[in-house]
Amino acid sequence: MTSGVVDAQAIDLRAVQRQVDAVLEDFLSEKARAAAGRGHPPEVVQAVRDFLAAGGKRIRALLCVVGWHAAGGDGQATSALRVAASLELFVAFALIHDDIMDDSASRRGRPAVHRVMRARLGEDERADRLGAGGALLVGNLALMWAQELLHTARLEPERHRLVHRLHDAMLEEVMYGQYLDVMGTGRGADDVEAALRIIRYKTATATIERPLQLGAAVAGAGASEDTMDVFTRLGLPLGEAFQLRDDLLDVFGSPDGACGPGLSDLREGKRTVLLALGLQRADQIQRERLRHLVGRADLGESEAAEVRTILQDTGAREQTERMIASRYEQVLQVLDGAGFPQAADRALRGLAVTATRYTS
Amino acid sequence: MTSGVVDAQAIDLRAVQRQVDAVLEDFLSEKARAAAGRGHPPEVVQAVRDFLAAGGKRIRALLCVVGWHAAGGDGQATSALRVAASLELFVAFALIHDDIMDDSASRRGRPAVHRVMRARLGEDERADRLGAGGALLVGNLALMWAQELLHTARLEPERHRLVHRLHDAMLEEVMYGQYLDVMGTGRGADDVEAALRIIRYKTATATIERPLQLGAAVAGAGASEDTMDVFTRLGLPLGEAFQLRDDLLDVFGSPDGACGPGLSDLREGKRTVLLALGLQRADQIQRERLRHLVGRADLGESEAAEVRTILQDTGAREQTERMIASRYEQVLQVLDGAGFPQAADRALRGLAVTATRYTS
Repeated sequence: MTSGVVDAQAIDLRAVQRQVDAVLEDFLSEKARAAAGRGHPPEVVQAVRDFLAAGGKRIRALLCVVGWHAAGGDGQATSALRVAASLELFVAFALIHDDIMDDSASRRGRPAVHRVMRARLGEDERADRLGAGGALLVGNLALMWAQELLHTARLEPERHRLVHRLHDAMLEEVMYGQYLDVMGTGRGADDVEAALRIIRYKTATATIERPLQLGAAVAGAGASEDTMDVFTRLGLPLGEAFQLRDDLLDVFGSPDGACGPGLSDLREGKRTVLLALGLQRADQIQRERLRHLVGRADLGESEAAEVRTILQDTGAREQTERMIASRYEQVLQVLDGAGFPQAADRALRGLAVTATRYTS
Repeated sequence: MTSGVVDAQAIDLRAVQRQVDAVLEDFLSEKARAAAGRGHPPEVVQAVRDFLAAGGKRIRALLCVVGWHAAGGDGQATSALRVAASLELFVAFALIHDDIMDDSASRRGRPAVHRVMRARLGEDERADRLGAGGALLVGNLALMWAQELLHTARLEPERHRLVHRLHDAMLEEVMYGQYLDVMGTGRGADDVEAALRIIRYKTATATIERPLQLGAAVAGAGASEDTMDVFTRLGLPLGEAFQLRDDLLDVFGSPDGACGPGLSDLREGKRTVLLALGLQRADQIQRERLRHLVGRADLGESEAAEVRTILQDTGAREQTERMIASRYEQVLQVLDGAGFPQAADRALRGLAVTATRYTS
């Protein structure tokens, strides 16, 4: 890479993250300037900037750059960074829309975008609906800008086509995953397989497999069938482990206290594997309590504590931890057989730890 | 074009429309097959198909193909038809999202997509919110598929870049226009300039200017600065006339009775130029009646008739007709000076009539 963040031994992931953020900041600064020039309201670009600034570990962007490196990418990393940055705008789009659909109050410790928009509307009786509409449009623009970053990544035609093929496939997979999640409310909350299927579509491919493959596609010649196949085999276990960890963190927080236990999944009644396992393993009384409490928008802290105790006592929490551990093992096995360059291999092992231990 | 729909004299617009519909049908059939193969729910593709089948004159698609021809496009029209078809999926996306934001009950005489989705959810108390979420995702997929049609239009690199630049600009313009429309509720309903500004962003460029320019970009060499500039100068008056006609049709229906007078704009309180003119020209009593009636979700037919009478008596209807007529004149003047090939010129004059007299 141009700035010496890769050598034979290691990829400096913090430096990559800074570079990705710089691409995003340049792109959005230009959007802000253009909006000002045309008299467009400034708060649209600002909402996207605030969303990105609020956090996120850029895990997809990092995987993209590591995938590029694993497939033999070297020299000018400009295109890889642009595709990587595009993925973060795509995530912003998906989460902004997610929060509208779930009517989540907050995201990354800040008010969700539709709540920000609603607050702009003051006392208007239609503020809920219009605020959601404003956020929907902000989300749409984030998606369009994600695509624009791809269109302007200066890829040669063959790579450009492959990047778009992978990207189009990713978008479709995520949308179908979200659709299943939103519209599949009829299925039993104790259905572990159904919960895993949603993870597969909604998270695993878009978080792990496709970012890695997109990076490889930018690298070009190195993007052999074998490399793409390794990324597919990494994607499922690592993506599932990532989401299972996320679900545990939301309910129980992190052991080191950096992330406190929360209420949002429990209030929303999110059909997680953790909950499905809890319902399966619960006795009659526990099951009734879970069904009574989970999904209540006004769930209080003491009731949440009761839910946590049940998920603990039934062994659902421990079983989820075991599922994460076995998937992490699978990831290591795939990497053992992949034969990636040392620096990429190390970075992937590091990201596998990041993704399965702590998440944003 | 391959199938003889263009000769020196005329472009057979009906044949073009059939070809565009065939591209859409092939593309969506393939999406349906792929969804079935992956176990995705079939109703997503079906919702998009139903939306397209419910009507629409494919005016944007036709303008794209005519723009292609005006810029000297000939021979294989496959790419032009694919870009044209993409525009219709883009419109589907924009209208599906529009209907969610306005909570419109119907579109083209059928239930709006979010109402269809809501009906699938039965008695679920969250059916309103989840149905809107399902439709939001269907809309997102329509947008993604619109982009996929572009990515796979087999354009050579330079044209591909230009097509994407124009398309990205169009998407952004429409989103900002919708944002202004949704979030700009504070402005006065009697502000004609504000109403025209929304038309400019939300309708004029995306309906007329950009489709024509996209067609020209596909034609390549013929897409001179001059041609692009003519399309810009056509876009504003024709786009405004198109929307002003649409607003009149929604309230008053068409003189031939093919389209009956409706309630949707009046119930929604849409800030049209027609309404702004009515409010400006009304006396005190009329103004109070307009403010009292327009925007009531339960507006009845007799109250709507009272609104129509006021819009008629104040001269707002006639003034809107005059605005359409003067814009139509401008369009003819621009065409007179453009020097397009005869067949393209005729087609554009025909479409100008279609767009300003009857709309779907």
